[in-house]
Amino acid sequence: MNSTLMAPNAQYQSCIDSCNKCMQLCEECFRMCLSEPDVKAREHCIVDLVDCAEICRTAATTMARRGYHANDICNLCAIICDECASECSKFNDEHCRMCADACRQCADECRRMRAM
Amino acid sequence: MNSTLMAPNAQYQSCIDSCNKCMQLCEECFRMCLSEPDVKAREHCIVDLVDCAEICRTAATTMARRGYHANDICNLCAIICDECASECSKFNDEHCRMCADACRQCADECRRMRAM
Amino acid sequence: MNSTLMAPNAQYQSCIDSCNKCMQLCEECFRMCLSEPDVKAREHCIVDLVDCAEICRTAATTMARRGYHANDICNLCAIICDECASECSKFNDEHCRMCADACRQCADECRRMRAM
Amino acid sequence: MNSTLMAPNAQYQSCIDSCNKCMQLCEECFRMCLSEPDVKAREHCIVDLVDCAEICRTAATTMARRGYHANDICNLCAIICDECASECSKFNDEHCRMCADACRQCADECRRMRAM
Repeated sequence: MNSTLMAPNAQYQSCIDSCNKCMQLCEECFRMCLSEPDVKAREHCIVDLVDCAEICRTAATTMARRGYHANDICNLCAIICDECASECSKFNDEHCRMCADACRQCADECRRMRAM
Repeated sequence: MNSTLMAPNAQYQSCIDSCNKCMQLCEECFRMCLSEPDVKAREHCIVDLVDCAEICRTAATTMARRGYHANDICNLCAIICDECASECSKFNDEHCRMCADACRQCADECRRMRAM
Repeated sequence: MNSTLMAPNAQYQSCIDSCNKCMQLCEECFRMCLSEPDVKAREHCIVDLVDCAEICRTAATTMARRGYHANDICNLCAIICDECASECSKFNDEHCRMCADACRQCADECRRMRAM
Repeated sequence: MNSTLMAPNAQYQSCIDSCNKCMQLCEECFRMCLSEPDVKAREHCIVDLVDCAEICRTAATTMARRGYHANDICNLCAIICDECASECSKFNDEHCRMCADACRQCADECRRMRAM
């Protein structure tokens, strides 16, 4: 790849990977929350999961094309990931724990990217 | 529709409609910029058009599901729409003029929504 | 707009509008299903609503940019809209009825587009 | 994760990873095509790249949530990836070669998933 235009690739790559992983875990957690016995208690969490998956996806694609507002989108992605992690942390099942971890890692990567 | 949960619908509707229209005009303008004789001068504009179409789409779906960060996304959408309008305004063809108008209208609607 | 390149605009416009409307009603119905007393019975419906919103959005943007596989995407969108309408029709609340209507209308528009 | 509901995870994972990688390389290739001296010759390729990035993203998220039409979306994703690989193969720069490879690998994974 043309390293002049697209650099610094390594810094983007780590954040894109975290966004893609967070997107996947949010979508999986969304699906599994729907079949939990206490699904009625999870409305806020489920909405956050769908929102978080979407902003992660938007962040990943915008970084990949080196969009001019990628840093702003990463900033917002970090905020939504933190919120989603907070909601998922209210539940003790493994998919919520794994998803909360992925959200926190993605938020950290996005804050690092935002500051670049 | 359940007017208690989903209200105020009218306020959302106007902004969702503006986001959908802006998304469409950005995608159309993207496509038409690619076939303009001066396409080489439009790299920045074309990237902004794709970014703008994406954030408009994200804003519209997040508002439709009443996501908890819809206002934050509208705030960012307004910033990206303003930037895209500014780029499109540099070109004199009709598709860029129409797109810039749609971007500015969408930015206004998103700022109104952000403040709610 | 350059009517040579982008025509036939009117035929696209009707389908794009139906896709955008269906996207919105699916997202709204998704949100409202989450707060229904029988949410546990709606897992299949809720997953279909999120899938349907996504393919409608993909179809609308692909048509707007005159993507070369817009007809294939419309074909798939019609299939997923029909499935979503069928699921929504199992529930008697107003948001599911309105959403099922929007899905069926969108499916019809997409089949018309596919055949062009 | 609940291995009963979400299995067979390994089979999905390989295809989700390929879709995410293809999405990224298409967006990067899109951006780099815009700055090539022969950008005017690349209109078809550029439109295919944006379409391909979008269907890959839709496929990845739909698989992650175990959507009921994931196989249909993978089938369409394979078709669009093949088309995009074919277009990219017309150009000799490294980003088009890398992107064509990612498209072909993603098409193979999607065909494998479709058949499950």
